Amino acid sequence: MLFNKVAIIGIGLIGSSLARVLKRNELCREVVVFDTNPDYMRKAVELKIADAYAPSAAEASKGADLVVLSTPVGVYGKLAEEIMPVLKPGAIITDVGSIKKFAIEQILPHIPPQSGVIYIPGHPVAGTEKSGPEAGFYELFEGRWCILTPVENTPQDALQKVAEMWKSAKMRIDFMSPEHHDKVMAAVSHLPHLIAFSIVGTVADLEGYEQQEIIKYSASGFRDFTRIAGSDPTMWRDILLNNKTTILELIQRFVEDLIALERNIRWDEGDKLFELFARNRKIRKEVIEAKQDDPEILKLFQPGRKEDNKLAK
Amino acid sequence: MLFNKVAIIGIGLIGSSLARVLKRNELCREVVVFDTNPDYMRKAVELKIADAYAPSAAEASKGADLVVLSTPVGVYGKLAEEIMPVLKPGAIITDVGSIKKFAIEQILPHIPPQSGVIYIPGHPVAGTEKSGPEAGFYELFEGRWCILTPVENTPQDALQKVAEMWKSAKMRIDFMSPEHHDKVMAAVSHLPHLIAFSIVGTVADLEGYEQQEIIKYSASGFRDFTRIAGSDPTMWRDILLNNKTTILELIQRFVEDLIALERNIRWDEGDKLFELFARNRKIRKEVIEAKQDDPEILKLFQPGRKEDNKLAK
Repeated sequence: MLFNKVAIIGIGLIGSSLARVLKRNELCREVVVFDTNPDYMRKAVELKIADAYAPSAAEASKGADLVVLSTPVGVYGKLAEEIMPVLKPGAIITDVGSIKKFAIEQILPHIPPQSGVIYIPGHPVAGTEKSGPEAGFYELFEGRWCILTPVENTPQDALQKVAEMWKSAKMRIDFMSPEHHDKVMAAVSHLPHLIAFSIVGTVADLEGYEQQEIIKYSASGFRDFTRIAGSDPTMWRDILLNNKTTILELIQRFVEDLIALERNIRWDEGDKLFELFARNRKIRKEVIEAKQDDPEILKLFQPGRKEDNKLAK
Repeated sequence: MLFNKVAIIGIGLIGSSLARVLKRNELCREVVVFDTNPDYMRKAVELKIADAYAPSAAEASKGADLVVLSTPVGVYGKLAEEIMPVLKPGAIITDVGSIKKFAIEQILPHIPPQSGVIYIPGHPVAGTEKSGPEAGFYELFEGRWCILTPVENTPQDALQKVAEMWKSAKMRIDFMSPEHHDKVMAAVSHLPHLIAFSIVGTVADLEGYEQQEIIKYSASGFRDFTRIAGSDPTMWRDILLNNKTTILELIQRFVEDLIALERNIRWDEGDKLFELFARNRKIRKEVIEAKQDDPEILKLFQPGRKEDNKLAK
């Protein structure tokens, strides 16, 4: 058993999926949860993925060996401040936030070195567009990557324990600096989400098209964007505002490329269009070969499947 | 039986899926195919979804009751010209192109009124990003919409026959003008695809990020765009160049909205971001309620499933 008591603060998609792993794989003796939504907490206990819930983050964290912050990143600072007084030396705080530089800036200043509390910033790169404890499932993390961005002087045994937990969820582990993490994620995650948010707004705003028609024929492409754009609003507001510099630069690059493509269309430059599209196909092939989509993605949406994932170490 | 002989010109994803429907549902006595790719033709016969293949579109169409053009729209004009001499009075030409005004402009001038040949422009709104006869499957069209955009003086019995064929594929049928079709599709299909093509290019071009990392962490959003952007290059080149006016206008609107969103991020307007994202979620909910995604989409990628689709009329 890796831990005695684990506290999960925020029992949404990620928190509840991790809770399922902790319980089913018997990684700890006790899971206690806190969430600002009382229904979520009750549901977690009802689903038997938590042993108990607490009236506050501090109450939930009392005496915990591990506290997992799985709320939107915007409240990390407040939470760290709140739970610090109840943590014992050797207790580990980890998080699952999609931006790591900001997470560290929010959490680390609240941890005095003499407290003996250890912070391990983490990001399990997995998810669906759904939210809440019922949206979570045991297999969410399988075959995906978990990125850990340890700060200076992190004790190796604590780092090892957090890595073990994610490995037990069948994740593959990567280590990198928080800055590099945030740059990579801006490109592969933040920009795509932002574009999806934007295009769904554009299409929904069009006058002269009946709203009904947009929904009706959405299977022809729009649908896939609504799926991406259906992700949690609070989480994404916090991500976009707090990884701002990199994201604004990427938007500029994207707009440049889009304008170039627009120009290709206006001037009938079919060869250039073909060239771009053919290159895209090659990238798509690489994604499939890296087992980051299809048929893996289908399995993700089929909770309860039994077979082991061959990718997991 | 709806037809005696059906010719399918272009035996890719759509053509081969329709061939499967024609054979399995016994809608005709004979399916003859032509494709510029000899491997595709041989494969179709090998898969028993075609009875024979022919050395040219004209040979394939000889004596056919129905000719289905399921090639990229860019070659419709050439094909119509080529097959006209071999068609008998009462023969029907239909197509599956994603732009209808252009399709009609290409095909109709080649059909003299006295020929007795009837053209029914159609667009089965279904697909995946895959191509070729092996990518097709019987269930592709189930529960999706088929839009017919009939031209003036179309005989009702011919229209009825084409509608019956798509109904047999479990599609729902809609009628509209070609102009309206092209506007709706520009919004729900052409713009989303174009954006996906563009963003995959932007992300792949970034220096300082290892290509390998982009692929590795693609499950966090980028993956979904590569799927959309993996669609057939020739088909999309032809669509974008030939529905130009509407598409260029939509790109402008999209860029405006994106710049506004960029500004919201730059000036920390979290409330505005939240508002946009929350509205997106509502649209997503409507798409799901209209059964245009999830779990229907999953079934689409599972060829061979047995259950009937409850949506089909």
